[in-house]
Amino acid sequence: MPDKVVPPSGTVGIVGGGQLGRMLALAAARLGLKSHIFAPDADSPAFQVVAARTRAAYDDELALKTFASTVDAITYEFENIPARTVTLLSSLREVRPSARALDLLQDRFVEKKFVRGLGIETAAFAPVDSEAGARAAFASIGAPSILKTSTLGYDGKGQRRVQSADDAVKAWHELGKTHCILEGFVDFKRELSIVAARGADGSVACYDLVENVHENHVLRTTLAPASDAAQLTPRAIEIARSIAASLNYVGVMAVELFETRDGRLLVNEIAPRVHNSGHWTIDACAVSQFEQHIRAVCGWPLGNPERHSDAVMRNLLGDEVLAWQAPAQERATCVHIYGKSAPKPGRKMGHITKLYPVGKRPSLG
Amino acid sequence: MPDKVVPPSGTVGIVGGGQLGRMLALAAARLGLKSHIFAPDADSPAFQVVAARTRAAYDDELALKTFASTVDAITYEFENIPARTVTLLSSLREVRPSARALDLLQDRFVEKKFVRGLGIETAAFAPVDSEAGARAAFASIGAPSILKTSTLGYDGKGQRRVQSADDAVKAWHELGKTHCILEGFVDFKRELSIVAARGADGSVACYDLVENVHENHVLRTTLAPASDAAQLTPRAIEIARSIAASLNYVGVMAVELFETRDGRLLVNEIAPRVHNSGHWTIDACAVSQFEQHIRAVCGWPLGNPERHSDAVMRNLLGDEVLAWQAPAQERATCVHIYGKSAPKPGRKMGHITKLYPVGKRPSLG
Repeated sequence: MPDKVVPPSGTVGIVGGGQLGRMLALAAARLGLKSHIFAPDADSPAFQVVAARTRAAYDDELALKTFASTVDAITYEFENIPARTVTLLSSLREVRPSARALDLLQDRFVEKKFVRGLGIETAAFAPVDSEAGARAAFASIGAPSILKTSTLGYDGKGQRRVQSADDAVKAWHELGKTHCILEGFVDFKRELSIVAARGADGSVACYDLVENVHENHVLRTTLAPASDAAQLTPRAIEIARSIAASLNYVGVMAVELFETRDGRLLVNEIAPRVHNSGHWTIDACAVSQFEQHIRAVCGWPLGNPERHSDAVMRNLLGDEVLAWQAPAQERATCVHIYGKSAPKPGRKMGHITKLYPVGKRPSLG
Repeated sequence: MPDKVVPPSGTVGIVGGGQLGRMLALAAARLGLKSHIFAPDADSPAFQVVAARTRAAYDDELALKTFASTVDAITYEFENIPARTVTLLSSLREVRPSARALDLLQDRFVEKKFVRGLGIETAAFAPVDSEAGARAAFASIGAPSILKTSTLGYDGKGQRRVQSADDAVKAWHELGKTHCILEGFVDFKRELSIVAARGADGSVACYDLVENVHENHVLRTTLAPASDAAQLTPRAIEIARSIAASLNYVGVMAVELFETRDGRLLVNEIAPRVHNSGHWTIDACAVSQFEQHIRAVCGWPLGNPERHSDAVMRNLLGDEVLAWQAPAQERATCVHIYGKSAPKPGRKMGHITKLYPVGKRPSLG
């Protein structure tokens, strides 16, 4: 496909209809771009904010072809999109991030090997594809460790804590005897992430390094910027740049990091998409991660990622969304609700971003 | 209609499909609300950002009834909506701002009488409905003065400068011998405006008083906040509060003001809607004028209108929108493009908001 700029009158195809697709479409609309959402679920939140919608399964080739024919460029909101879907779409339109990047980052084992190959630290890891493999992996990594499905997991789903070789075997059975990875436990000081964008011209723009607090494996709070991060930021940017450049990546990615107690940064996971830990950028930066991603996908120049405010982003999980009236009245507080129908326990229903003058963000209490 | 809160899963009906309707729908989407746009033109920019659209004439009663039946509350993006349309919709759903407020503010003469009745200054004015009336009005107001159609004018359309009684008669003929108003010319120091919201609970929230620069009767630039406005702001807020309370107004309104050379504030015009001079609030406030209006219309609590940044908003008129790539790369600069098809000369195609730390906005050069 020729590398062209999609002008403000053009249409971006977005595969996936969740809150990330929704916020991508809203960001595209600011820029005058239309969005066409492709998603299987009639109840997709992103459908509510676009004029063009295709409701079809991700393997519906006819629907995918028709979708591709109506758009100028294609992206996606989640990394678990089937590889065949991306391959088909890539044959018809520019898909960003590329099928190659997605392919590599869909698989935890492949991803970690790739990251290590760039000279970047990760937790110890080993592949597990059999009972014997589980025992061998545990022998090399030791306790405690975590067995994860190598593909398709998110928010702690598809993970088991492992304390012994027998545990490892049992966990592998529980996870469906699928392709897994055993990861050494990192006794980290805190969890950080950096959201970076790479443009079609190779330029890279990184948002501030942020600090993330998880509860039950789900992101609860992001502090932007991370406290006392001056020492860590150059290395975080170097890591993000190195990963993005090496993949010839175009779009936004998030690199989740562990800060060790002795101040090293380990890559935990790379998300080839906009990321929950970048939601604060909607309200605290002139150009949000969503707009930045749309810009990259459309061949636009990247925007300046500098923040104008410090921010604390807190997810609204499940029923918490019903209490929107309180934050809606607070000073410097931005309320975002995703338009999902059922507030199931733990489901990401919205988020709140509280803004502070630069340098005035309170620390975690 | 009962006064109820439209929850995040609800639907707002928006009459009018231009950029204001579009930005209202985008603000509603942040809050999880759906929007249904009613507009006659298939090419309406607001249609691009919603799932529910009715394309019909403003006097299509069946379409209006069907539209009303699918939404939980109704608002509009422009004041020139036919009175009968509002009356019909008001019989079916809560319409905000109310038909009464709209009716009063649609007519320059009625509006000015109302404002004077509140003890607020305006330019001298007199109604003109005949040749004799034109001469009488000129005799009382003098030169220079401006003859305006009393309804339906905007952006300088439907106005004639008048230097003599004969001029006044000629202008009245040129404007179609319709209901007009002759206004005394105000030798103002500068043009200001204040965007205010009044909630269903009677609470009022005012954004900062801003300074507007017009070119060819069209808004070119808004400086937020206005320079040296500390003395003027309390009076501007008092004016906005008084107007909103007296109309039992619900929603956002903009009050355009002249600052005289001796520091008085005269009301020029009241817009019963979100306003171009409030576009800066999208990027410089936690809660924009568009979100504030949606909150009011839906019976939500108003948000805090405080700004987190100073701002300069500049409209992109006509072909200027084609040069979006330059501002798109500037620091702290937000680009907004409205999705209109043809960049006709002078047409509002988008706007750019440049952000500055509070207190650091440069003055006009």
